[in-house]
Order: sequence, then C-alpha cells, then structure tokens
Amino acid sequence: MAQSGHSGGPQVLRLLNCAAVLRAIRATGSARVTELVEATGLSRPTVTAAVTTLITDGWVEETEDRTKDTPRMGRPARVLRFRDNAQHVLGIDVGPHKVYCAVADFNGAVVTHVRRDVPSMISHSELLEHVKRTIELALNEASVSPTSLAAVGVGSPGIVDEHRGAIVQAPSVPGWNSLELAHWLRQSIDCPVHIENDVNLAIMAEQWNGAGSATDNLVLVQWGARVGAAVVVQGRLHRGAHGAAGEIGFVDLDSEPQGVQPDGLGPLEARIGTAAIIDRARRLGDITSPDAVTVLAAAAAGDALALKVLDDVCAQFARGFAPFLAAIDPELVILGGVITLAGDAVLAGVHRHLGQRALAVPRLELSALGDDAVALGAVRLAAADAEQRLLDSYMSADGLSRA
Amino acid sequence: MAQSGHSGGPQVLRLLNCAAVLRAIRATGSARVTELVEATGLSRPTVTAAVTTLITDGWVEETEDRTKDTPRMGRPARVLRFRDNAQHVLGIDVGPHKVYCAVADFNGAVVTHVRRDVPSMISHSELLEHVKRTIELALNEASVSPTSLAAVGVGSPGIVDEHRGAIVQAPSVPGWNSLELAHWLRQSIDCPVHIENDVNLAIMAEQWNGAGSATDNLVLVQWGARVGAAVVVQGRLHRGAHGAAGEIGFVDLDSEPQGVQPDGLGPLEARIGTAAIIDRARRLGDITSPDAVTVLAAAAAGDALALKVLDDVCAQFARGFAPFLAAIDPELVILGGVITLAGDAVLAGVHRHLGQRALAVPRLELSALGDDAVALGAVRLAAADAEQRLLDSYMSADGLSRA
Repeated sequence: MAQSGHSGGPQVLRLLNCAAVLRAIRATGSARVTELVEATGLSRPTVTAAVTTLITDGWVEETEDRTKDTPRMGRPARVLRFRDNAQHVLGIDVGPHKVYCAVADFNGAVVTHVRRDVPSMISHSELLEHVKRTIELALNEASVSPTSLAAVGVGSPGIVDEHRGAIVQAPSVPGWNSLELAHWLRQSIDCPVHIENDVNLAIMAEQWNGAGSATDNLVLVQWGARVGAAVVVQGRLHRGAHGAAGEIGFVDLDSEPQGVQPDGLGPLEARIGTAAIIDRARRLGDITSPDAVTVLAAAAAGDALALKVLDDVCAQFARGFAPFLAAIDPELVILGGVITLAGDAVLAGVHRHLGQRALAVPRLELSALGDDAVALGAVRLAAADAEQRLLDSYMSADGLSRA
Repeated sequence: MAQSGHSGGPQVLRLLNCAAVLRAIRATGSARVTELVEATGLSRPTVTAAVTTLITDGWVEETEDRTKDTPRMGRPARVLRFRDNAQHVLGIDVGPHKVYCAVADFNGAVVTHVRRDVPSMISHSELLEHVKRTIELALNEASVSPTSLAAVGVGSPGIVDEHRGAIVQAPSVPGWNSLELAHWLRQSIDCPVHIENDVNLAIMAEQWNGAGSATDNLVLVQWGARVGAAVVVQGRLHRGAHGAAGEIGFVDLDSEPQGVQPDGLGPLEARIGTAAIIDRARRLGDITSPDAVTVLAAAAAGDALALKVLDDVCAQFARGFAPFLAAIDPELVILGGVITLAGDAVLAGVHRHLGQRALAVPRLELSALGDDAVALGAVRLAAADAEQRLLDSYMSADGLSRA
C-alpha cells in the first residue's frame, strides 16, 4: 500500500492530521467531513487535505450516504468510509490435532475459515506442511492475496517466548520444542507474524467478543486432552515472569511429586484430561463409550455413570484449581474445550467442589466461542497489531513518537 | 491548615499553578525560584505568587541555601523547601499478638514507633483499648498532636472490605469478624483512616523500600502462626474480586477437604504454621525447644533435627504453593514472618521442593523489612493518600477534575 513520504516540519503535521482523521473515521465507521471536523477539532481544509491523502493511500473511500439523514433535495451527502478490506489479517490455531485458519478483514471480522484435522502422531515438518496448505486454502476461498496481508496471529500450545518467536515447552507435540514456527511463517509470508500461547489467545477472544467481555479479572480453563489456563488481571493478559502463568495442567497434587508423565501429560492433566475421563468410565463399568466425547455427552443427558465420572474429575480439578484461584481470586472462570460437552453438569460439578475448598468461589461459565476461540484470538492479536502499525505509520514519522 | 478560598476563573488557574509548583518542590526536595520556573514552564511572577500562597498555607518554607553552589559574594541564595513536618501520618499494625504504631512525616519517613505485645486471648474491646493507648504513646513520643495528622493507615489480618472499612474474615482474632475498626478510629481521629489487609501492606512496603523494589510481579508470603500471601501483578497490588487474592493459608491439599480447623486455622496453616512446627519437632523427639522460634533458630544454626522439621514444612508449603504460583508465575517471592528466623535454610528448602513441583521457580528472598513491614506499608498507604488529597485540594477547585 502506498504511503506518503515523510520529510519533517509541516509534512509531519500533515501526517499527524491524517492519523487523527483516520482514527475518527475508524471510531464511527463512516462519517461526513463536517462530523470529522467536529470529532478532530481540526479545520475543514485540514480535514479535507487529510482525507485526500488517506484516499490516495488506499485506506479511505468516498461513498454516497445511504444510512444517514439526507436532505430531500440536491445531491446526496458524501460520507467517508474506512476500507475494511484494504488489507486482511490471518488468525491461525495450530493444535496437536487440528489446524484452523481464519481470514478476517482489517477490523478483525472473519470472512472465511478453514479447519483441518491433523493426525496426532506426525512429525513437526509434516505439521508445518499442514499449516501451509491450510493457509493457502483459506486465502483462496476468501480470494485474498498473500501480499495484501497486514499481520498474522498464531496460537499454539506450550509456553511461547514472544521475543524468540519460539515455543519453549510443548510436550504434547513431538519435536515441537525446538520449532521456530513464527520464523518459518515469517519466511513464507511478507508481514509481521505474532505467536502466542493458544489459551492466552482464547481468553483474549472471550474478552473481546465472548463470555469475558464484562470483567477485567478472569481465568479461562481449556480442558480437553490437555488442561491449560489463561489469566487476565487488571484488564490485561498476564503471561508471568517466565511465560508460565496459567499452566494448571502441571499442578502436582500428590505428597510425592509425580512430575511430567511418560506420555508428556502434566500430573493434573493425567488425572482429569480426556484420557483419564475414558479410563475412569471404563473402570466404573462403562464398556460402550468409545471416547470421552461420548461420556461427556452422556453426562449432559443425565446418565448416572457418566455423571459419576464427571463428578470425580471435577473433584480432582477443584483440588488443584482452588490454590490457583487463591492467588488471584478472579470474578469469572470460563470453561472451554471438550469438557463443555457436559454442559451445565460440569459447571455444577466444579462449583460444588470448589465450594468445599475455595474461600471465594468465582462465577463459572462455559466458553461462548468454543472451537473458534483460539483462531479468533489470533485474529484479534493480528488486527490490533495491524491497526497500531497503520496509525504509527502516520504518527511516528521522523522519530516522532506516538502521542 | 489554612487553605485559600476557591472562586473560579483566574483563581482556579492560580490554584492549579500552586499545585504545579508544589509538585516541583516535592519532586526535588528543595529548589530555587529559577529552578521552579524551569521545572514548571510557568513565568517567574506566577511561580513567585504560587510560592507566596504555599508559604501562607503552611506547606512551604523559605530557607538559606546551604547545600547548593552559592556565589561567594552577596547574600546567600534562598531556597524553597517542602515542610515535611507540616503534617504527619500514622501507620498502625494491629495483629493478634501485637499493636505497632509508627509516626511518620508527610513524606512517610518514620519519626518514631511504639510496639506493644498484646495477650493472645483478649476481647476485641480490650484490643481496641490497646490500639488507642499505643497511638497516644507514639504521638506523645513524637510530640505530634492528633489534630496535625493528615491520614492514618491500618493493617489487620483477614479479608478487608475497603468500602465498608470492615474486616470480613479474620478467624484468628475472636470477635474480630464484626469489628468496624476503621469506623471506630474515624470517630477517635479527625482525618481519613484507611484499613487494609496486613500482608497487602507488607508487600507495598517491600515494593516501596525493601526486597521487592526492582520488580512489578511478586508475591510476599507471611509465614508465622498464620500463613498468608499478597500479590503484586503488573506493578499493582492485586486484591481479587472478593478481596481474597493471596489467601494461601486456606489451601486444602487433602483428597477429602478439611476446611477451617477448630482453632480457626486454614488447612495449610495447620500443616506448616508455628504450631505445626513445634508439634513436628516434638514428634521427631525434640524435648528441649519451648517454641517454634527456638526450632527455627536451631535450623539456621545447622541443627539436624530442626533442619528435618524445616524440610518437612517446606515440602508441605511447596505442595500448596506450586499451584498458587502456576496462576501468576511471579519473578520474585519474598518470605516474611517468623519463618525467616531459619535464614537461608528456609530459602533452600522452599527452592528445593518447588523445583520438584513448579514449571518455573521464581527468585526467593527473605523480607528486608521484617517486623516493621506492615506498619511501614500502612505509613505508605497513609502518606500516598495525604499527598493525593493535598494536590487535589489545589487542583479540584470548583469542580475542576485532576489533570
């Protein structure tokens, strides 16, 4: 996208005015010049000049006003609209069992998404190939060129080192420890790529557009084959000093430490994850359920044996989760992942057992976004970065820092 | 203290200028008019007028410059100094076994303090009487009149409800649950009184002036007869949605929930507090140590039996504390309370056992402030409030809100 050159002095001021006008147009969606004069406090000629630059740069378009009150006579008023589709962003969820790629416009509204199941025991080079093909497919479906991408967000299990763009610890995917996923994507795609822990992205999506939008102190527990959590305190994602905040799956309840299991699961995951759920069901005499999904659906339908299994894992979860809650005392805990198939029964079970262990029991809700949460959070991450860089491109000319 | 009347318009501007000049004087300690002109960007006549008002109001005094470069000839330059002792603040630590009252100047520098041991099984009206007498004694020693107090901070065990000024939960002090301590102090003292959880105040003190000053992500564990923690994330004290953040003492490790013990201790406190330490020592055959203090001092001196006791409680502590750490992944954990008598041995023990359970082990340090921490945090709380209200008194005139 073309961008006017910067040369200091009055030119810097003109660019700052562009940024102010751009911000005002994005805040309202579409606006007349008169409204922009009011919103920015700039003069009409200044606003008009800024709008011309923004149209030339491809960010703004002029259309006829169809939504606003229009005078009955004379030509219809013209409004300025941000070109949401001037550039796009990608949100990618790379899990051990799936690759999910969402294509969204510049505002983060998803245009199309593609989800591919991935065999669980593949090499990391095969997984990268899956990621690549999923991206191509999604861009094709959306008719979006890779060159028009403004930013990419990627979610992946494990502790993610933002600075190195690497996944420091992800025992669930063989070979994943040393995978420089962001580096590889950066070589393939010509725009900034941001990598983040998958559960961290899910909580950002819930805050943005889901169950967590009304509070600034919440925890999301992603409970499936693995169990991880993300933490928002004081309105902001809390990663911790080593990027390890929220790693509930590695909590060790026994008096003798158990450590990471041979299958790579953390001690709590090994007690309550989907493998443990099906194992418990079998030990209680369930010889019909082929997988945890069936057990959880049966619990939701009121099956007594399935409810007993669910109660057992909720009791174990509460035992590890109560001291976790004691650290932050959140207002809301969102449950996500396969466990949500049990519906209200899992909320009731967790609430009952936390009530026996926690000084203050938070509000409990099921995820509003389900399987889409990580990719939506990745879209959010990419869209926020794209917007910031767009504004910066007008505001940080010649060493001028952002206001 | 006299305060100029507010009447809007130019008068409001004059008060805003006073606030700016006051802020500049407080930032540097003492300053010449020329320096204030530079620091505020105001004109010399404006600064001079503001200084006159501040002197009249009693906040600033003019002295001869003894510290700065002075011309050899002519009269010495005059500097303006904030009158630190124009008003004072109190910090009070009301624990189950002591009342500690610190008198500090307006900047929070402690002038004098008085500490009184309090018998453990007294009624709450007796405890209030102790508080009252300790305050009187401390004010007398400092020659400070109660009418010159700008603010009082009070620390107390339990979950403190800031808005009600009440202690919601403090099982350690009989009758304490319903005690409206702040209300009672407000009736006795004619200035704002702020009440806060004692461990929260201790961490504020460590951040201000102790071991935690270099990080914005830390936990303080106060480990004595009771065990509680306070949490700072993103640079700010984190109280939690119900004021219960940090209540590690109530963590319940057993597969069957134990709940609060008959003696009012939480399940983890009952395992690792001073009563449990002396109990363990006796069971291991120590028939000489009269109390936990002796056992901990023996551990510090390398006594094998005492070290075994310490290792046992460190193992139990790590078991409950590792999931707590998993929530926030702090950079630093400060240990305070009686346990610090064991010195490096307790740091080593906690580090060893956390290493077997936590994904990321934080840096561990002993409290730098010890027994003074709560009262110093209370001083800090009071001084911050006093300063804010002083600046507000100049800046919020006639509905003008703070810039």
